[in-house]
Amino acid sequence: MKKIIFLSIAIFLCSTLVTAQELANFVNNKPVISPEISGNEVIFRIKVPKARDVKLYGSWMANYTDRQDLIEKENGIWEVILPTPDPEIYTYHFIVDGVAMSDANNILMQRDGTRYLSMLLVDGTRSANYKEAEKRGNLTKVWYDSPTLKMNRRMYVYTPYNYEKGKQKYPVLYLLHGGGGDEDAWSNMGRACQILDNLIEQGKAKPMIVVMPNGNPGQQAAKPLMLAENTFDYRDPSTANLYIHSLAKDIVPFIEKNYRVIPKPDSRAVSGLSMGGGHTMNIANNYPGMFGYIAPMSMGIREGQDIDNQLKALKKAGYKLYWLACGDADFAYPGAKLLHEALDRNGLTHTFHVTGGGHTWSNWRDYLNTLAPMLFK
Amino acid sequence: MKKIIFLSIAIFLCSTLVTAQELANFVNNKPVISPEISGNEVIFRIKVPKARDVKLYGSWMANYTDRQDLIEKENGIWEVILPTPDPEIYTYHFIVDGVAMSDANNILMQRDGTRYLSMLLVDGTRSANYKEAEKRGNLTKVWYDSPTLKMNRRMYVYTPYNYEKGKQKYPVLYLLHGGGGDEDAWSNMGRACQILDNLIEQGKAKPMIVVMPNGNPGQQAAKPLMLAENTFDYRDPSTANLYIHSLAKDIVPFIEKNYRVIPKPDSRAVSGLSMGGGHTMNIANNYPGMFGYIAPMSMGIREGQDIDNQLKALKKAGYKLYWLACGDADFAYPGAKLLHEALDRNGLTHTFHVTGGGHTWSNWRDYLNTLAPMLFK
Repeated sequence: MKKIIFLSIAIFLCSTLVTAQELANFVNNKPVISPEISGNEVIFRIKVPKARDVKLYGSWMANYTDRQDLIEKENGIWEVILPTPDPEIYTYHFIVDGVAMSDANNILMQRDGTRYLSMLLVDGTRSANYKEAEKRGNLTKVWYDSPTLKMNRRMYVYTPYNYEKGKQKYPVLYLLHGGGGDEDAWSNMGRACQILDNLIEQGKAKPMIVVMPNGNPGQQAAKPLMLAENTFDYRDPSTANLYIHSLAKDIVPFIEKNYRVIPKPDSRAVSGLSMGGGHTMNIANNYPGMFGYIAPMSMGIREGQDIDNQLKALKKAGYKLYWLACGDADFAYPGAKLLHEALDRNGLTHTFHVTGGGHTWSNWRDYLNTLAPMLFK
Repeated sequence: MKKIIFLSIAIFLCSTLVTAQELANFVNNKPVISPEISGNEVIFRIKVPKARDVKLYGSWMANYTDRQDLIEKENGIWEVILPTPDPEIYTYHFIVDGVAMSDANNILMQRDGTRYLSMLLVDGTRSANYKEAEKRGNLTKVWYDSPTLKMNRRMYVYTPYNYEKGKQKYPVLYLLHGGGGDEDAWSNMGRACQILDNLIEQGKAKPMIVVMPNGNPGQQAAKPLMLAENTFDYRDPSTANLYIHSLAKDIVPFIEKNYRVIPKPDSRAVSGLSMGGGHTMNIANNYPGMFGYIAPMSMGIREGQDIDNQLKALKKAGYKLYWLACGDADFAYPGAKLLHEALDRNGLTHTFHVTGGGHTWSNWRDYLNTLAPMLFK
């Protein structure tokens, strides 16, 4: 036993040096704690001894041009004490002598497309389901063939707690990201796994599989993987439609073949934000009857855009829920209102779920948290 | 068709604004390209208009205190042109007026414990297997119960290409991280999936499952998840041994129950770096006969440390391969040499694989790339 203890101490000595060896230059001598939430106050700190001007921007601020000054304290550490914002997940960064930088002392980071953002979680009712539940499902990065897009591509698949243990078949939510995002967005920025874990644990949502594909048809997978991208652009309308077809013809059949799912419209839901909201409406319009639950978020149609025939076909094919969500400060709101009116005009039962706020992950997380309990009931 | 095209354009317009809305402050007006490799030169750039002094540190430099000066060019962009280092994956950061910061223009980031590091991949023979292969296996973040540690914990499980399609049973490599790391380390810093994908695709390694657990017994999972950590510390010798027991009693049985594996010693390998190298030796010594392949990296024993009885028991139990790898500039090298001598003294057939270099991911990736083809043959 003594031998094992000594060995372990030796291992520990090694282990502290490991980090030192690759990170020696990056680490400050004394750890700086940032952010630090204590009740009604949150303190942000950064060690920048030679800086002349240090500011903070946080996504809780009213305007994107808002800044909060930090003040220099001891040992080159600058800090600012702010009132703790309302419960939610926020992103923030420092601006040191005019240069935006992440908080190197905060291990919580989110990636939104090409950017890594420091994250602040404020506990409370609204953010309760964004933290890890007790019973957690698994997340797999799955490669699949897309004959439609002529590529092997990657998606993320969430399987609920205990999926491995039973013989049960599950319904499936196809959850689509927005422009600039990728297959990582909903599980990372969107906290989709945490939200589903919590809702399922609380008995509020039915256990379901959540499929998060990559909606950029030119990409095999998220850009941090070093794969060649196809020459066609996700902004090209024709390839945007190719993605819709790949979803219907490649992804849904793959999932229904490889997972224990209920392969019926009433057990298929599709939802997405912004560009993914467009994909959601578009697949519902192009493949009427395929999805029983249709829930675009933060998107809409243009003035004069005529989708009446598609909506009539969708009505005829039938569905269980059409749930359109948008913030009233969202630039997509006027278009969402037009879609709401088109649904009304064509007699499609639906909910137009209007909230405050804009085109933000704060809204999309909240929409998922609101939507999931309505699915497959 | 026209309608769909118009809709898609509208979606695209939305999608460009999305990114703008949460990231407006973070993005420079004009994208800065960094790093840019062109043949024998690599250019690093950063836009810091008010900076007085900008330097670069890269992990290819000989000393941790080495710095390369950047020069101010147009529009506040500083740059440095360097000879492209030898093929490998490196990490680097800028030092702006004394403050270390990541390269915000580089989407390639690696997380090593609590730090996010900008990454540079230089193409070449040595780094060929670190890039994505054509045929890729899946990676799952798996939650499992550890009765030994009284926690539900997370590990990463790599299943090789086509695992889903067949009925074949696979051998398993248990691959352990070092101090300061977590279950994310080998797939992230270590490029384990890419290495295995490439070796399997080339027919050099047998298709295998790779299990990457979290070796810090106080953690349920990597710190970016917001789970309470247990009060015991991974540096505590008694809990370090608890982890060994949890590996043998919780993890191996879980994998053998839930995956299509060959549950025999000759189809079980264990390897790990530094602290994980200690875990590797320790589990081999404490559970002789359990693993047919034993491969500690960058670790060793202390002067006078007596493991002779354990090694004798291991010899008696038998194994197929004992492969000890270490760089001759590694601080762990003297200890590794002592372990090599102890193996010799007790008559255990083994390979002492000595390379150049130190206690670095450069070595550990290379060791995995060298080791995997020797397993399960």
